[in-house]
Amino acid sequence: MLLGPALSSEDAAHQAISKKVGLAVFASDALSSVAYATQEILIVLAVAVGIYGAGIYNYSVPIALVIVALLAVLTISYRQTIYAYPNGAGAYLVARDNLGEVPAMMAAAALLTDYVLTVAVSVASGTEQLASAFPELRQYRIPICVAIIMVITVINLRGVKESGAVFALPTYFFVGMMFLMLGVGFFRSFVSGTLGIVDQTIHTEHIADYDGVFLLLILRAFSSGCTALTGVEAISDGIQAFKEPRSKNAAATLTVMASILAFMFFGITILANRVQAVPSETPTVISQIAQVIFDGGPLYIAAIASAMLILVMAANTAFADFPRLSAFAARDGFLPRQMASKGRRLVFSWGIALLALAACVLIVARNARVTELLPLYAVGVFMGFTLSQFSMVKRWLTVARLKPGELAKTLHGEAGYDSGWRWKLIVALVGGSMTFVVMVVFAISKFSAGAWLVVVIIPTLVFIFYRIRKHYIDVARILSLSGRAVNPLKHDVLTIVFIDDVHAGTVPMVEFAMSLRHSWLAVHLDNDSEKTAITKAKWNERMKYAYHPLVIIPTPFRNLTQVAVDYIQHHLDKAPGRLVHVVMGQLVMDDYWQQALHSNSTIGLKLALQRMERVIVTDVSYQLHTSQAERFPENVEHNYKLPETEVANGHGATHGAASAPAARDAGADAAAGK
Amino acid sequence: MLLGPALSSEDAAHQAISKKVGLAVFASDALSSVAYATQEILIVLAVAVGIYGAGIYNYSVPIALVIVALLAVLTISYRQTIYAYPNGAGAYLVARDNLGEVPAMMAAAALLTDYVLTVAVSVASGTEQLASAFPELRQYRIPICVAIIMVITVINLRGVKESGAVFALPTYFFVGMMFLMLGVGFFRSFVSGTLGIVDQTIHTEHIADYDGVFLLLILRAFSSGCTALTGVEAISDGIQAFKEPRSKNAAATLTVMASILAFMFFGITILANRVQAVPSETPTVISQIAQVIFDGGPLYIAAIASAMLILVMAANTAFADFPRLSAFAARDGFLPRQMASKGRRLVFSWGIALLALAACVLIVARNARVTELLPLYAVGVFMGFTLSQFSMVKRWLTVARLKPGELAKTLHGEAGYDSGWRWKLIVALVGGSMTFVVMVVFAISKFSAGAWLVVVIIPTLVFIFYRIRKHYIDVARILSLSGRAVNPLKHDVLTIVFIDDVHAGTVPMVEFAMSLRHSWLAVHLDNDSEKTAITKAKWNERMKYAYHPLVIIPTPFRNLTQVAVDYIQHHLDKAPGRLVHVVMGQLVMDDYWQQALHSNSTIGLKLALQRMERVIVTDVSYQLHTSQAERFPENVEHNYKLPETEVANGHGATHGAASAPAARDAGADAAAGK
Repeated sequence: MLLGPALSSEDAAHQAISKKVGLAVFASDALSSVAYATQEILIVLAVAVGIYGAGIYNYSVPIALVIVALLAVLTISYRQTIYAYPNGAGAYLVARDNLGEVPAMMAAAALLTDYVLTVAVSVASGTEQLASAFPELRQYRIPICVAIIMVITVINLRGVKESGAVFALPTYFFVGMMFLMLGVGFFRSFVSGTLGIVDQTIHTEHIADYDGVFLLLILRAFSSGCTALTGVEAISDGIQAFKEPRSKNAAATLTVMASILAFMFFGITILANRVQAVPSETPTVISQIAQVIFDGGPLYIAAIASAMLILVMAANTAFADFPRLSAFAARDGFLPRQMASKGRRLVFSWGIALLALAACVLIVARNARVTELLPLYAVGVFMGFTLSQFSMVKRWLTVARLKPGELAKTLHGEAGYDSGWRWKLIVALVGGSMTFVVMVVFAISKFSAGAWLVVVIIPTLVFIFYRIRKHYIDVARILSLSGRAVNPLKHDVLTIVFIDDVHAGTVPMVEFAMSLRHSWLAVHLDNDSEKTAITKAKWNERMKYAYHPLVIIPTPFRNLTQVAVDYIQHHLDKAPGRLVHVVMGQLVMDDYWQQALHSNSTIGLKLALQRMERVIVTDVSYQLHTSQAERFPENVEHNYKLPETEVANGHGATHGAASAPAARDAGADAAAGK
Repeated sequence: MLLGPALSSEDAAHQAISKKVGLAVFASDALSSVAYATQEILIVLAVAVGIYGAGIYNYSVPIALVIVALLAVLTISYRQTIYAYPNGAGAYLVARDNLGEVPAMMAAAALLTDYVLTVAVSVASGTEQLASAFPELRQYRIPICVAIIMVITVINLRGVKESGAVFALPTYFFVGMMFLMLGVGFFRSFVSGTLGIVDQTIHTEHIADYDGVFLLLILRAFSSGCTALTGVEAISDGIQAFKEPRSKNAAATLTVMASILAFMFFGITILANRVQAVPSETPTVISQIAQVIFDGGPLYIAAIASAMLILVMAANTAFADFPRLSAFAARDGFLPRQMASKGRRLVFSWGIALLALAACVLIVARNARVTELLPLYAVGVFMGFTLSQFSMVKRWLTVARLKPGELAKTLHGEAGYDSGWRWKLIVALVGGSMTFVVMVVFAISKFSAGAWLVVVIIPTLVFIFYRIRKHYIDVARILSLSGRAVNPLKHDVLTIVFIDDVHAGTVPMVEFAMSLRHSWLAVHLDNDSEKTAITKAKWNERMKYAYHPLVIIPTPFRNLTQVAVDYIQHHLDKAPGRLVHVVMGQLVMDDYWQQALHSNSTIGLKLALQRMERVIVTDVSYQLHTSQAERFPENVEHNYKLPETEVANGHGATHGAASAPAARDAGADAAAGK
């Protein structure tokens, strides 16, 4: 759910949203990309301006047209997916259903990478907008980006309930401002002819990989411009949030969103040419256009503010998408199981923290510059588009093989057999092929500029997913009792109670051992002969009703764990089929800080015992409330009594408590009873 | 042991060191302070040069003389302490033995603070020496300091075995170079008259707190110079490392060290005046002197290198002292018990990391400048001196009350009753009073410059120590069985086996419950009705030999822990005196990464059960070796099987595994059996 943690699947029906709100919620990612797409086309073209003159910038218009055409195909294709999968048509789910395991893992890897880049690129672009209006902030772009990410992170960690209005305001504000800007711009340019041009002294950005091949230049510019399409898939991920009829409403919203996107992107590209915008990051191209159209002033500031707001909102949506997709992948065994459960606040928080950290690293590594970040983006996005559409190709092919009778009961929604699977197959095939080509073009043309990183990361993630899944399947194979003969047997049980010291915490351990009414041993590991003598004496005096002697096991090399393991193994070997039941004591404090003061010296032993077959470990807790200490005798002897002025033995008490053996009564050791 | 982790108390006899090695090992901290003490006197005096002219610098000589006199008293006093405490005469141990708890805690707090500052000041001064010889490094002082601390930290974390030679080389190199410098300097100044003066264009450092009160100025300069005395106590901490007769050897070494220190410090102060050294941090005063005396050249570089080396070595000794003192304090219950055990590598490492981090914070906060760090230093050092000597005053007063006969058998070593307790009392009283006055002067005169921080930190630490000790004493009071009637009873035991799923890991749980041969229940918490039905069916089919039905407990609000606790409480209440024995399953993997893939959903329940009286918790582990998965049937159904192409149900598999209920056989959940 993009609406945040408040929505659970049970609540969904009550929370279903209208088309208007749906547009606001899901459009921020897609629409916000017009804030940088045109600019990045121009920046790519700028490297060749020395050779071809300023006329090279005119190529941005046909490039934008091709991108708009691509958007049209993509929109038609995604509408069909939305009808086919009314419960959620994200690339991951669709690929998993139709193409299988590896493509699903590829989709998950691509999308997770993407969300990180959505955060980084959106925040970087938002900061560039801000720095365009307030040039003195330019030098602080990195800290501003990091601060924005931190704020978004904290908001998401706290799980604020977001309402549709929170999304609606920035989206409609941005759409309104852009429409106003384009309207005024077109009027002044084509009707009244009063539109000026941009100050040509602005510093032109260069990227340094022009190698003289014109086609490659155009392809690079096209690749950069294709970032306008990022986020188009958001609605298909969130169909479930819409009011019924969901598919219809979602598809209608998608069409409206794509139209707005196409209009804004193309309009901005045309106006950028009319005002002779300079390819530049600060001021951004959109800032230059708004500046010229509104002649500066409050409307200019409003336009910049709207762009910044929607970009931040786009970054925020990735914070909802990332843990949601992780949960899907975890349920399918590609990620640790713990991530599958939304209720696990801690795990959810780790996902958010990981996303924020990765985005910050990218921001710092790429100097908070959109131009440097962009080569990493879009490969993942277009891989998602491609997988999604090829999944649909597979689906329509499957449909084609079905007999009409079968189809009637398997296909629901408005997409019936009759309404033309052939046409849908063609759309998906054309759309998938186009996005695949764009992905390849992008990966090649931007490879050295950073796309290589994504080309490395996605297969690495796929490999990790594969290993995790294999682990879970292996575990399932080993654990399954299906078809195996199971006959639980009764065994001989020997209980061994590890006694570290004799004190109040020892009593419940002994009582438990006695209550089991079968054979048991009380064992003390002797790693300090002085302490052993005292413990034995206390046992004989205070535990005499247990009618069991204390068995002393020497540990000459202080390797307590190994001695304990050997001793237990010895008893296991004595009687085949015997279970050894180890009982250990544990002091439980009221506070964490108090618990932290008690060393868990038993942890090593417990880990070792876990690995032994036929060994079962029991903890007997003793709840100790220090606030009630006043009820107990004050002058008890304890380990921590400072020795009296030791003129008496002259040599000082170098080793603290060790020099006062008689003072060792309670032995308030955390590992009590061990 | 200063010699590092290789020395245990058993080995001490074999590793005992000679006076020569002892000097090298324990002198680096004390001797290295001459690298900055004179300079800091001059820097304080520099603020008044506008009023009193350059003649103000001449006051450094009488100030140094007073400090040397203080050193003499301190040395005599510490010699007596060393004879009285041949097993270790550190301020903490001596204060604890004679003055009691609170002074011991004050000594511990003062010394721990001190070790942090020893690291910071020594490394900062070492870096200043380096930057004096290579001025281009000046701007990188902070990163250089941090890098040096990191290297020392890594060396100490790895626990490299240090030999006496590692210490001997830098110490004797430094002493040799300083003696050579002083010899040549005195010859050229007083005999041949060829000694030049320092380049007077060097930038004079100012500290901005001169308020016109001449006495306060001199006191401040004196305070700064007193840092020459830091580290004098090191030998008294390490007596045990010396060859027998330990006290005699240690005392002799102390005398030699103090003499060298006095000679070097006074000599450097005199020569600083002769060469008209400029109060400056880079180049340092010692660098200026060496430059003039050796006319630059290789001997100058050697002198600077020797100073830098011994300073780094001084910082390194704090890395041995800090965890050692922490261990003493922990044994006495002032710090968490875990820190008392040297064997605990992890805890020891935390101490080292903490020290390094604190030193780095100070370095960064104080710009790696000795002049800015110094006001924080010395308060702790002189508090240690004072507590140590007042402890001895107390001790000699106690001795005085004894009858000669008692004394003979209580006092050993060479310090007998006859050899003059009155004289020793006076020395300790005079020494203690002097260091107390210096401490107060220091705290007041440097208060606003940073000493306030130490004045805040030390009482805070004392408070923390007090609270920790109170906790341990409270625990001991509650746990002690001394004088209490103990009569362990047999109880009725009800075993409740929590069954999460039925698989191979369930078998040993059931076998254990059956083997106990008393009443038990198999319980399943129902938080997913679909899964519950499957689990119940599997139980009935595969666990039929257990002859126990599976009890299903509904958890309508998914609050599994609360439902389990209530259910157990219900059984506790049914029969007074009953013990409830909860059995839970646990999958144990071969690797940590595999274990991490299995959610520990039982942790919350275990923590809750620990807090319940009369509830005992048993873990039944199932060792699962995924490397052997091939031995098991391959086509087992499991949670993580991707659904077949789901044209069959048309709606896709939005919730992954949840949509394939029949595929849930093994349910490879980590919390298996819960």
